[in-house]
Amino acid sequence: MTGMTDVPAPLLPPTRTLLGPGPSDVSPSVLQALAKPTVGHLDPSFLAAMDEIRRMLRTVMGTRNELTFPMSGTGSSGMETCLVNLIEPGDRVLVGVNGVFGTRMVDVAERCGAEVRAVEGEWGRALSPEAFREAAAGEPFALLCAVHAETSTGVSQQIPPLREVADDLGALLLVDCVTSLAGTPVELDLWGVDAAYSGTQKCLSCPPGLSPISFSARAEERLRARSKKVQSWYLDLTLVASYWGSERVYHHTAPINMLYGLHEALRLVLEEGLEERCARHRQNGRALWAGLEALGLELAVPEAERLPQLTAVRVPDGIDEARVRRDLLEAFGIEIGAGLGPMRGQVWRIGLMGAGSTRKNVTLCLSALSSVLADQGFALRGDPLAAAAGV
Amino acid sequence: MTGMTDVPAPLLPPTRTLLGPGPSDVSPSVLQALAKPTVGHLDPSFLAAMDEIRRMLRTVMGTRNELTFPMSGTGSSGMETCLVNLIEPGDRVLVGVNGVFGTRMVDVAERCGAEVRAVEGEWGRALSPEAFREAAAGEPFALLCAVHAETSTGVSQQIPPLREVADDLGALLLVDCVTSLAGTPVELDLWGVDAAYSGTQKCLSCPPGLSPISFSARAEERLRARSKKVQSWYLDLTLVASYWGSERVYHHTAPINMLYGLHEALRLVLEEGLEERCARHRQNGRALWAGLEALGLELAVPEAERLPQLTAVRVPDGIDEARVRRDLLEAFGIEIGAGLGPMRGQVWRIGLMGAGSTRKNVTLCLSALSSVLADQGFALRGDPLAAAAGV
Repeated sequence: MTGMTDVPAPLLPPTRTLLGPGPSDVSPSVLQALAKPTVGHLDPSFLAAMDEIRRMLRTVMGTRNELTFPMSGTGSSGMETCLVNLIEPGDRVLVGVNGVFGTRMVDVAERCGAEVRAVEGEWGRALSPEAFREAAAGEPFALLCAVHAETSTGVSQQIPPLREVADDLGALLLVDCVTSLAGTPVELDLWGVDAAYSGTQKCLSCPPGLSPISFSARAEERLRARSKKVQSWYLDLTLVASYWGSERVYHHTAPINMLYGLHEALRLVLEEGLEERCARHRQNGRALWAGLEALGLELAVPEAERLPQLTAVRVPDGIDEARVRRDLLEAFGIEIGAGLGPMRGQVWRIGLMGAGSTRKNVTLCLSALSSVLADQGFALRGDPLAAAAGV
Repeated sequence: MTGMTDVPAPLLPPTRTLLGPGPSDVSPSVLQALAKPTVGHLDPSFLAAMDEIRRMLRTVMGTRNELTFPMSGTGSSGMETCLVNLIEPGDRVLVGVNGVFGTRMVDVAERCGAEVRAVEGEWGRALSPEAFREAAAGEPFALLCAVHAETSTGVSQQIPPLREVADDLGALLLVDCVTSLAGTPVELDLWGVDAAYSGTQKCLSCPPGLSPISFSARAEERLRARSKKVQSWYLDLTLVASYWGSERVYHHTAPINMLYGLHEALRLVLEEGLEERCARHRQNGRALWAGLEALGLELAVPEAERLPQLTAVRVPDGIDEARVRRDLLEAFGIEIGAGLGPMRGQVWRIGLMGAGSTRKNVTLCLSALSSVLADQGFALRGDPLAAAAGV
């Protein structure tokens, strides 16, 4: 093994402008926080940082839930955490499915032994509360699952009306807030959400690797009343909570440096103010929409159901979808996202998330997109920058 | 929510000398790698980095296994990955238990629906191949699990003889290499290991957050032949492998910046050379042992079964165990570990791992320990530094 001549060079990642569905651009102070000296997972200084993270997360998630902390995995591990802890084999689970992440919840819930009923809806549209009611057909359910911000389509789902549906079915309410948190308002307590998960790499503008979760007192009760152990040891909240809680019982070695990054990212959110941050996302999203439409492009989601932080744009006839993304990356260093599932090849997904939601990026994105579309002979309809500036 | 006056200050973690059971001290270039600009998980530059990580990991793990990559969670997620992918409900699993991590494997395997038989051994001693044979009682098993380097006790387990036992039982061989990898030789192919997992925060000297795993062709075959889906979606290797393999199918958003860190940590291992690195760990471990014994302290594990990177030291009668650790941390900024399970309060665990395995740290640790023990009236027997220097 000695004398390996073939050691790769140190990485020199390019500096991109990340305007896809995540990861989003990360603030310099968050990147620098990642590089702070590693300490032990039971170091008094780290335990204090954990408490600050929990406190800031509660504010950002709009909750007083005691059980609120980041799981040591990416957003999908947060989805799995919520489902493995709340579901026991044979439980009946109702899942809204209008994109990749609803589809994924069905898969994960089935692996937990749930009897899953999907509320199927059109991709690119929100689901009505009535659709949930009809699918439930008056039968009882243990859990109702919905995606607040569908990352695969850019659709915003209203959550409060689903609380009422869940109550009628006797169900707890589980919500995916991966792409919404810190970009559009998330008010877990006000909305009566029982369990929620998010990711760090969207509007929190922290690199991927952690998944904030929150459980209401009712969800905790459900967890405590389980008859069978949670099927995942790694994601078992009865164990993880003993480390994040006052007991400080070792469970796994926390990802120290990633948590430094999250601490700084949450600090930046609170320094800006949640209302101001959401207003900024709305403003830049609307400017982007106006610009895209001025260009002659069609947005895939009706305005009332559209997320300001993630916009799905239809690929015009005759345009090579992948070439546009490649040209943006190679000539401008801009990343935008492709469509997923049934929308593959049919849309682009443009994200303006967290630190990336700026007027500068709106302008850059519209200008660069105009240029690469013109390269393919697309006839631009109007002036996107004037339209964006007019919002 | 606006105008929160109570935003915490930016973190200022203290600079520690991490001489516990992990996390270990991280090289400056690894910390700096974490802070490099985040790119997308399908960015061509990142895909190239992933390939380099896989190639370097194979070298460090002593394997040509195609299915070799880091999972997006800490070491315990690697344990769970191996078990959930290899076990189907009702499978018979034989687990060596002489510490916390064998105990944990029993728990995780049972959550997978396995019929588990534990091979119980004394904490602080290795298990003999005969102990596995006797526990198996000639019955067939699907999986034999052992811990190569027991982080809770500092015991080194010989793996090659267990291959023979596994063959006789018809079992695949799963090995925990969390604390061994890149500190003592790990030769998966030579030893005939079918599945292994590790962590980044031990002898790889990368912050915690990733878990390298490797599956042999036979283990992959077992995975493909499953009759039931893997119970964890997040850790399902049939899905994760499609992202790390040439297909590049999106599964979850990889923890980009943590992977930058691992890339740099692996580079440093290969630049040093695996043999040289293991020799360094041996040399510094032996120097520490000589110094501790010169002080008049007793080591908990017989020399032939002792890990050079992690040494369990018995707490002498009349000494306040927790006060020693607190004094080391507060007066010297040195972290050492407490005992776990039945060894709680009875031992300290001193790690010399990765970048932390230096003659400087041996000297510092022995001097500081002498000082805090003397503060409690412990009669030092001899000169630890002279003894360490004589090794």
